[in-house]
Amino acid sequence: MSQTATEERHAPVPSAGGDASSVHAQVEALCAQARAAAGELALAPTAAKDAALMAVAEALEASAAEILAANADDMAAGERAGLSTALLDRLRLDSARLEGIVAAVRAIVALGDPVGEVIEGRRLPNGLDLRKVRVPLGVVGVIYEARPNVTIDTAALCIKSGNAIVLRGSSAAKRSNAVLAQIASAAIASAGLPVQSITLLPGESREEIAALARQSRYLDLIVPRGGEELKGALQGVATVPVIYAASGNCHVYVDASADLAQAQRIVMNAKVQRPGVCNAAETLLVHAAIAERFLPAMIAELLEAGVQLRADPRVIALAGEHASSLQSASAEDWEREYLDLTLAVGIVDSLEQAIAHINRYGSGHSEAIVTSRGDAARSFQRGVDAACVYVNASTRFTDGGELGMGAEIGNSTQKLHARGPLGLRELCTYKYLIEGDGHVRA
Amino acid sequence: MSQTATEERHAPVPSAGGDASSVHAQVEALCAQARAAAGELALAPTAAKDAALMAVAEALEASAAEILAANADDMAAGERAGLSTALLDRLRLDSARLEGIVAAVRAIVALGDPVGEVIEGRRLPNGLDLRKVRVPLGVVGVIYEARPNVTIDTAALCIKSGNAIVLRGSSAAKRSNAVLAQIASAAIASAGLPVQSITLLPGESREEIAALARQSRYLDLIVPRGGEELKGALQGVATVPVIYAASGNCHVYVDASADLAQAQRIVMNAKVQRPGVCNAAETLLVHAAIAERFLPAMIAELLEAGVQLRADPRVIALAGEHASSLQSASAEDWEREYLDLTLAVGIVDSLEQAIAHINRYGSGHSEAIVTSRGDAARSFQRGVDAACVYVNASTRFTDGGELGMGAEIGNSTQKLHARGPLGLRELCTYKYLIEGDGHVRA
Repeated sequence: MSQTATEERHAPVPSAGGDASSVHAQVEALCAQARAAAGELALAPTAAKDAALMAVAEALEASAAEILAANADDMAAGERAGLSTALLDRLRLDSARLEGIVAAVRAIVALGDPVGEVIEGRRLPNGLDLRKVRVPLGVVGVIYEARPNVTIDTAALCIKSGNAIVLRGSSAAKRSNAVLAQIASAAIASAGLPVQSITLLPGESREEIAALARQSRYLDLIVPRGGEELKGALQGVATVPVIYAASGNCHVYVDASADLAQAQRIVMNAKVQRPGVCNAAETLLVHAAIAERFLPAMIAELLEAGVQLRADPRVIALAGEHASSLQSASAEDWEREYLDLTLAVGIVDSLEQAIAHINRYGSGHSEAIVTSRGDAARSFQRGVDAACVYVNASTRFTDGGELGMGAEIGNSTQKLHARGPLGLRELCTYKYLIEGDGHVRA
Repeated sequence: MSQTATEERHAPVPSAGGDASSVHAQVEALCAQARAAAGELALAPTAAKDAALMAVAEALEASAAEILAANADDMAAGERAGLSTALLDRLRLDSARLEGIVAAVRAIVALGDPVGEVIEGRRLPNGLDLRKVRVPLGVVGVIYEARPNVTIDTAALCIKSGNAIVLRGSSAAKRSNAVLAQIASAAIASAGLPVQSITLLPGESREEIAALARQSRYLDLIVPRGGEELKGALQGVATVPVIYAASGNCHVYVDASADLAQAQRIVMNAKVQRPGVCNAAETLLVHAAIAERFLPAMIAELLEAGVQLRADPRVIALAGEHASSLQSASAEDWEREYLDLTLAVGIVDSLEQAIAHINRYGSGHSEAIVTSRGDAARSFQRGVDAACVYVNASTRFTDGGELGMGAEIGNSTQKLHARGPLGLRELCTYKYLIEGDGHVRA
């Protein structure tokens, strides 16, 4: 079954000869097939999509040996090619990680189906009945780097939301990705949904990325999961709408009215718990009125945890015995997303100054105030222009799962379409259904 | 007051020397000012925005003579320049049209404020309280052609939704637009909102369009209201997100089960009532089972109304005495948006064929089925991929006002962010407000 399904999928597609035009033709043919699958998938009942995803989970479990063998080949090739330890770690699958992938698929099955949700509805004055109903976008492209789990995570999110997916992973993971995508699309076909619901590009040439980005006839959205280099590769050429993964220059502001012990816990969590992710804090702002009471202990605890501090002169003046351990913050330090155990620290003279600093330097991702005053909380939440604005909580909660939206395909700091975690609903658009009994416009 | 406000607005901005870099610098400076105004406007209470808009309405009424004089100058210049009668008609203001503009502002005052609406909210398992709240986008750019009413209509929609607006009208309307924008921004300032909430570019060089399209630091969205030429001018250069105005290749499908008298009324309304707009029908599809009973009378009535018909061979065979008045439809005729008294007519053998035809040739704007069967209506509404899908109603209802959304700034056939009419809510994004009492992530 799996073999037949895969053959069927690839049969009419020209193979990539390597040059740009043949890569483009191959990508276009695969995207056209995905579009046809999307039409069918959009109408699939929740039960059919859930059954298909359960079949994927079971097939992954049943094929664990095959998956791990393919991954071992990728790992061996990666070692020969001299990939960094960090990259190899991201590439590696083992039984525990595979179980995690399977568990994530089952968790997506358990989420509500966004398709068909009535967002709003009303009877119009002329008697027409109107409903605004959530429907799938159509075909979603995902471009990603080493982690093979993304193949299954994003495919499961797309299937659940009624979208076909076209995946483009890195060449380092091509054996793992090929086996994972083949198992998943065969399982989906065995459950009666179109085999082309999941399409994996070969991952053999950079040209695939540009070709994918120009399939505006067939693709509705591209979600790139990678750094600035990938963003640069897309920005000049994409005709398909792109939602870029967020960079997070997140702040914690400790207000004059803060519970200082609470503030210290929140700052430590936001900076230290997992510094390499986009919702970790990069800057601490402290109100001048409590700086002298708050900062010495805070600085000591941060340094103790191995955090490097880039501070303004007033902070350094309060650092006492630790002053020599602090670096002076440059203008660029307020703008940087360190993604590391480094924190910029500044003193502000008012809540308004904190808000202005955040709106100037922040990336609109996640911002937090620690305060006991309701008016300060309200002003901060209204004044700060960001996807997630926290009161007395760590910025680290910005995550689809943590916020009750289920798994996410990425996180957006743009304002159009979707802001914050991109979950099942954000993979949808809507349409208006309007019913009358012969209504014509006067 | 009005004079002072205008001077204040223009004071720090370099004047356009005409070359690209000075135009760019001028546009950038104006957009930066609009961004500053947007920060204030986003926090303005509904009452303040409504008061400002009422002041705009009153100021327009009080300045009618000044406005009509400026428009007369534009008209005279347009006549000297040999503008077409159609263009001059769109450019022309008179007392009645000015009253219409004022009435539109008052109608926008009467609409609900989208800002601050709680879209959803919940308490998370860990006790965090989350609200997803609607907030303004920030700064919206509108690029438009001859009609001066757009200056006020779009500015009022932006103010009501808490957005600053940067307008770029055509040079043909520059005197009218300048007076209208100056009166409106002075009125807004007199009511205590920032004078830079409304900014009008000079409209003196095409370079302004490219410069505006690249202000991604200050602008959140551009809505172009113009044809393919304007779209072309933006597509290569825009770094600001753009929602292009919809083209509408809309269909009416008359099912085998249709009430034929109702179908005839709907077809006439969709094609003839106002053929030059995007929600008018361009193609009629008729089920083969009722074609012989339906088409002869339908064809006669359409021809009587002066509609030119491009038909497939089966339709021509049923046209009897009128056969010679029908043109044979070419492949391109199914794709065209005539925006005129022309209609393509085809026969299909099934509902599925109608849906496939519409999804292939339609532009995803507005599509209608006439049917008495619930199952056909349901299949059509689910299967057709368009912003508005009608059952037993004319496609002509696709309009913010008609659909109960209030005035619109445009109409979208794209799927991301907003689909269909772009009203007050569609000029907003959202943010998540999350409150805890010292929550940190485990």
